[in-house]
Amino acid sequence: HTRTFNTIDWVREKSKDRDRHREVRRTGHPPPPPSSHRRHRLTSCALAGGIDIAAHWLTDMKEGLCLVGFWFNHEHCCWTSNETTFQERDRCPQWQSWAEIMTGTSEGALAYFVNYLMFLVWALLFALLAVTLVRAFAPYACGSGIPEIKTILSGFIIRGYLGKWTLIIKTITLVLAVSSGLSLGKEGPLVHVACCCANILCHLFTKYRKNEAKRREVLSAAAAVGVSVAFGAPIGGVLFSLEEVSYYFPLKTLWRSFFAALVAAFTLRSINPFGNSRLVLFYVEFHAPWHLVELGPFILLGIFGGLWGALFIRANIAWCRIRKSTRLGHYPVTEVLVVTALTGMLAYPNSYTRMGGAELISELFNDCSLLDSSQLCGYKQSNSTSGAGVGNGLADRPAGVGLYAALWQLALALVFKMMITVITFGMKVPSGLFIPSMAVGAIAGRLLGVGMEQLAYYNHDSAIFRGWCSPGADCITPGLYAMVGAAACLGGVTRMTVSLVVIMFELTGGLEYIVPLMAATMTSKWVADAFGREGIYEAHIRLNGYPFLEPKEEFQHSSLTADVMRPRRSDPPLAVLTQEGMTVEEVEALVESTHYSGFPVVVSQDSHRLVGFVLRRDLLISIDNARKRQEGVVGASQVVFTEHSPAPADDAPPPLRLRGIVDLSPFTVTDHTPMDITVDIFRKLGLRQCLVTHNGKLLGIITKKDILKHMANDCQQRPRLHPLQLKPLPLRHPSVAPLRWEEEEEEEEEEENTSWHT
Amino acid sequence: HTRTFNTIDWVREKSKDRDRHREVRRTGHPPPPPSSHRRHRLTSCALAGGIDIAAHWLTDMKEGLCLVGFWFNHEHCCWTSNETTFQERDRCPQWQSWAEIMTGTSEGALAYFVNYLMFLVWALLFALLAVTLVRAFAPYACGSGIPEIKTILSGFIIRGYLGKWTLIIKTITLVLAVSSGLSLGKEGPLVHVACCCANILCHLFTKYRKNEAKRREVLSAAAAVGVSVAFGAPIGGVLFSLEEVSYYFPLKTLWRSFFAALVAAFTLRSINPFGNSRLVLFYVEFHAPWHLVELGPFILLGIFGGLWGALFIRANIAWCRIRKSTRLGHYPVTEVLVVTALTGMLAYPNSYTRMGGAELISELFNDCSLLDSSQLCGYKQSNSTSGAGVGNGLADRPAGVGLYAALWQLALALVFKMMITVITFGMKVPSGLFIPSMAVGAIAGRLLGVGMEQLAYYNHDSAIFRGWCSPGADCITPGLYAMVGAAACLGGVTRMTVSLVVIMFELTGGLEYIVPLMAATMTSKWVADAFGREGIYEAHIRLNGYPFLEPKEEFQHSSLTADVMRPRRSDPPLAVLTQEGMTVEEVEALVESTHYSGFPVVVSQDSHRLVGFVLRRDLLISIDNARKRQEGVVGASQVVFTEHSPAPADDAPPPLRLRGIVDLSPFTVTDHTPMDITVDIFRKLGLRQCLVTHNGKLLGIITKKDILKHMANDCQQRPRLHPLQLKPLPLRHPSVAPLRWEEEEEEEEEEENTSWHT
Repeated sequence: HTRTFNTIDWVREKSKDRDRHREVRRTGHPPPPPSSHRRHRLTSCALAGGIDIAAHWLTDMKEGLCLVGFWFNHEHCCWTSNETTFQERDRCPQWQSWAEIMTGTSEGALAYFVNYLMFLVWALLFALLAVTLVRAFAPYACGSGIPEIKTILSGFIIRGYLGKWTLIIKTITLVLAVSSGLSLGKEGPLVHVACCCANILCHLFTKYRKNEAKRREVLSAAAAVGVSVAFGAPIGGVLFSLEEVSYYFPLKTLWRSFFAALVAAFTLRSINPFGNSRLVLFYVEFHAPWHLVELGPFILLGIFGGLWGALFIRANIAWCRIRKSTRLGHYPVTEVLVVTALTGMLAYPNSYTRMGGAELISELFNDCSLLDSSQLCGYKQSNSTSGAGVGNGLADRPAGVGLYAALWQLALALVFKMMITVITFGMKVPSGLFIPSMAVGAIAGRLLGVGMEQLAYYNHDSAIFRGWCSPGADCITPGLYAMVGAAACLGGVTRMTVSLVVIMFELTGGLEYIVPLMAATMTSKWVADAFGREGIYEAHIRLNGYPFLEPKEEFQHSSLTADVMRPRRSDPPLAVLTQEGMTVEEVEALVESTHYSGFPVVVSQDSHRLVGFVLRRDLLISIDNARKRQEGVVGASQVVFTEHSPAPADDAPPPLRLRGIVDLSPFTVTDHTPMDITVDIFRKLGLRQCLVTHNGKLLGIITKKDILKHMANDCQQRPRLHPLQLKPLPLRHPSVAPLRWEEEEEEEEEEENTSWHT
Repeated sequence: HTRTFNTIDWVREKSKDRDRHREVRRTGHPPPPPSSHRRHRLTSCALAGGIDIAAHWLTDMKEGLCLVGFWFNHEHCCWTSNETTFQERDRCPQWQSWAEIMTGTSEGALAYFVNYLMFLVWALLFALLAVTLVRAFAPYACGSGIPEIKTILSGFIIRGYLGKWTLIIKTITLVLAVSSGLSLGKEGPLVHVACCCANILCHLFTKYRKNEAKRREVLSAAAAVGVSVAFGAPIGGVLFSLEEVSYYFPLKTLWRSFFAALVAAFTLRSINPFGNSRLVLFYVEFHAPWHLVELGPFILLGIFGGLWGALFIRANIAWCRIRKSTRLGHYPVTEVLVVTALTGMLAYPNSYTRMGGAELISELFNDCSLLDSSQLCGYKQSNSTSGAGVGNGLADRPAGVGLYAALWQLALALVFKMMITVITFGMKVPSGLFIPSMAVGAIAGRLLGVGMEQLAYYNHDSAIFRGWCSPGADCITPGLYAMVGAAACLGGVTRMTVSLVVIMFELTGGLEYIVPLMAATMTSKWVADAFGREGIYEAHIRLNGYPFLEPKEEFQHSSLTADVMRPRRSDPPLAVLTQEGMTVEEVEALVESTHYSGFPVVVSQDSHRLVGFVLRRDLLISIDNARKRQEGVVGASQVVFTEHSPAPADDAPPPLRLRGIVDLSPFTVTDHTPMDITVDIFRKLGLRQCLVTHNGKLLGIITKKDILKHMANDCQQRPRLHPLQLKPLPLRHPSVAPLRWEEEEEEEEEEENTSWHT
């Protein structure tokens, strides 16, 4: 159990569980209570609620303080005050900005400067605290965690990744990182947090503690719960787990995740963090249906989303590689502080970047009503110019000064967000991508939406708009464009399809806009796929060299299993045990001389007919036990793997019978099996290794890592179809080993050399 | 190609497709245009729209005629009239009931009798036409088709099931069956129709025509499209295909289905069959949020749904078995006519059963407004009794005479629907289950909802209602209960979970009611599963004895592969070919003497080391070709399966080299492999057969049918866990072979005997 990285064998684990079930039924012991699911969901929900509240409080603290009690955030502070009206509920004497507290005034350059400075100071303080905590206590707490969880769910073991320290530190640092104003979201990390909760609770039950496959089923459900509580989107969460995260997702899990998400949704509704009795985070209510002509701009947004997604992945991976390969990677704290300072300095002057990502998205999604005081709704009052629109407060109106100013600020915010997100994602703090990507898309969408609205207003008699966009009608809803843009950008970055659309309409309640959302998401995926088939999570998996066998992509090469298996032609022959005839000493010598984690058992060295497979660990333990307890077992004793051992010679010591530890049903393929079929078998059955035979004779062994290496080599050797694509990353970059990761990388390297037949 | 029933081998088919891709890429031939998807979706949509319109027209024809033109349905007839007001748009002089046309009056007992009679006559006429057409032209067009499609998607081939005749006849008879007033829906059959469309279009492209696995991917997408157009629920359709119908659903298909559903949703919106610009079939807008206390009744509805589902499946299967085993099955036409007459006679007097299922559901889902003239909204005007409610037209009010009458009628309708649906589903007409199940649930839900409402009204000060249900408030929405009840009943019958909730909220637009829907669906599934784990479709699959390996249920028995494989201990030894040493005559004799569809090739009869597997058909064709073309191949020629044949003796005829037709990578398991792992391998890889080895020696063969038989036997031998469960059906009932199915059954029987090593 000292290894940090390891892979599991799905079929065996599942089979173990069935045996346990049978045992339980036979002996009449009651099965353990299934309450772990429920309890961990509640915990996740409580944590998510807590994170939400804490992040709000800290974010507001950057701007000012509540005089009644510093533990109130801005909104609560003013709720407790009686002096606010509904219109100006954000302003109350109890809440004072830092300038007011320090200089006594909230006007003028000095006050602005003080506020600016305090904003930066707090942001840097939070960021410093976050990165220090991560580095000191839980190096795994950084990033979004989704690439690692994908890898873990595919059958890889990363010890400590889902441990309690990771949970505690990630929860705390997530709040700090979000509050520090960095361009990151809390949704991805929440998936990691939920998985940590699930994993810790799994340890309470033998069923899950002992069985890696069963535990992965619970983790799949936990991923669903994570998204469910992050967005308040129960079904979106289940689909996200299915489409994006889970590797091995039996239908039984679908229905369990569904139950988990139900409990989560229910708990969330009871906690009610959004302050309205809906489950919906960005509730929107648009008044106009969309028109078919609008599909044009929606698809345009899809193209933008796809381009941005592809560009973002390229740029972010390139930046991460620079970080790994240059000295930059040695100063993660400095990096975080510099990026935080940069973000804070550039973000503060622009109100759209100063506010949090979720807040920004919420404002961009909103439709303008007549009373709306937001700058985004700074339209000219058009009552004089258009008689038809008098009664209709929602009619399209010409843009006024306020709106033009807002558009400029939005355009700047767009550029800023696009840049800063690239360098933020991948730093050594917890950071999610959902909110920043959606923010980029929402800004772009809103800009296009306002543009379309003005176009329609001034050209309502042109061929395109005639018939459905008469003057004084509310025909274009800029908020809808923002929504579609957000979906497109998120789709471009993550390559989600169905789950994204479901999440979007669970987020916004906009069931009627399913076709625009679908159209934009599809376009975005197509465009992004044209530049490279990997989403951001797969790209990071490849960057980190995790052994992840992509379940979606098909293996397209025409090699045979014989080309990939070990031993290669130049290698020494395969180390095998014979079912009889070897002595304990010989077996021990063989085990000592190699590092393989298991050995095939054959009938005899001549025939090489396969009997089974025995694990190194089992072999060593059995021999050890036998030497200690069994009478007469010495180094010269025969080791017998057959059922009926031959009668020993009179003077020979009694044989050591080890049939019990042999796996008599190892998976085999023939050397002529095309690699695509072998890869399929590994994927579908979740194998760790498979023996290769030729005409019934054992020839070699093939492991998951052999396959991954072969696929990576194959990628490098032949150019991909798209000429635009960068040269693919090697599976493991030679100089990639910054700081704390170093030990683990080495450990993994060693594990790789020692575990399997190489 | 004369066989009607056959199974496919997924892995081989997939591999074939990859080879084709490589070939295409190598030779530079452009891949075929992928437009088939799009085109078939359009066709499906057009068909669905057509079915909708035609069914409306015929249904209305049972009640009367449009004098302006008989081709108008009731609604259109009155649309064209100018004399109608908005309130009474259903009444216009142009539309005359049969009584008015025949007797000149619409009042009095005679008119009622005439209408009643005409209603029956038309219904019988439609039903007669439907059943005659089905029997005459396309026996496969009956039923919902979903069990068969599930089986086909799991890798079984039923020739003609998705043919053009089935398509045409199913489309026509579906309209007739729906119009005849039978208690059936058009949603399930639409899935079949969509799959027929897809299959026919597949024939236009080599890629899909030649590859059964690729074609199944398209069929999976088609099933999604079917539900998408039936309900206007694109995402629900995709999930339905994933959860309920598809066997082998790679993520690639998820995303293709999504695209297909997008096109379908888009087309449907353009056709706009529901007359509103929404995609939503039963659009509801409730004004009150639900309260936590209401979860109690929702769960109660879930329990009702589960009980009804379990009961329905039992009763329906029992009735179908009676039909199959008694003389009843010999008179399908009479049966349909009797049931139609019974339905018509009992349904006409009750307005809730007279109207179509969809219409009924729509009315039950709707919330009452003050102006609503429906009987269901016959509340007392409560302004005098409760001062607080004056301003609120939607407040809870005490039930009036009209409502009590409606409740009685609904209760009768509930009993009637529950009875008649049991005997309707499974008749020889196209019949879906979605609408009838939902109708039962909606009635039950509405009844409970009104009950709760009255309870709340009269006890608003009791502990349960105090605090959230003050007098004059609109706290209970009976329509929501109807919605939840509908979901619960449909869930109980089909055992859908996630897809059902998504379909329900896509149907109604009620995103906020996701928790009630989820709670009811889960409860319903739990309760129903307690009485038997099979949904209605699996039950029908088992009733019909299709070779369907349930992907969801786990195989729980502790047998080994050696116990299930052929040959058994008492059987003659396995027929094998040796890789050299057999003459053409010997091979021919071996092939002639057996019926197996393939033969393992071994190194020699002594060693029995496995080389490969060769198909009977390939073997026969090759020998035939060789005898015709190859010089010197005679009966005494050696058949050689090795790569390098030994030099023949001087006087011997030249050998026949057949290495090319040998599959050198047959799947193998060892005889010690537990059956649960073997079943897993068959399921996940979609195998048709697998060879069994022991210590590298070929021992036997195991086929999908062996596994199915073993599982069925196993079921019969040991009692299930639930004592309430009926004795399980045998896989194939001895006397089950009514009418047209007879030939196919026999053919299958024969196929079963001849195809595999039995």
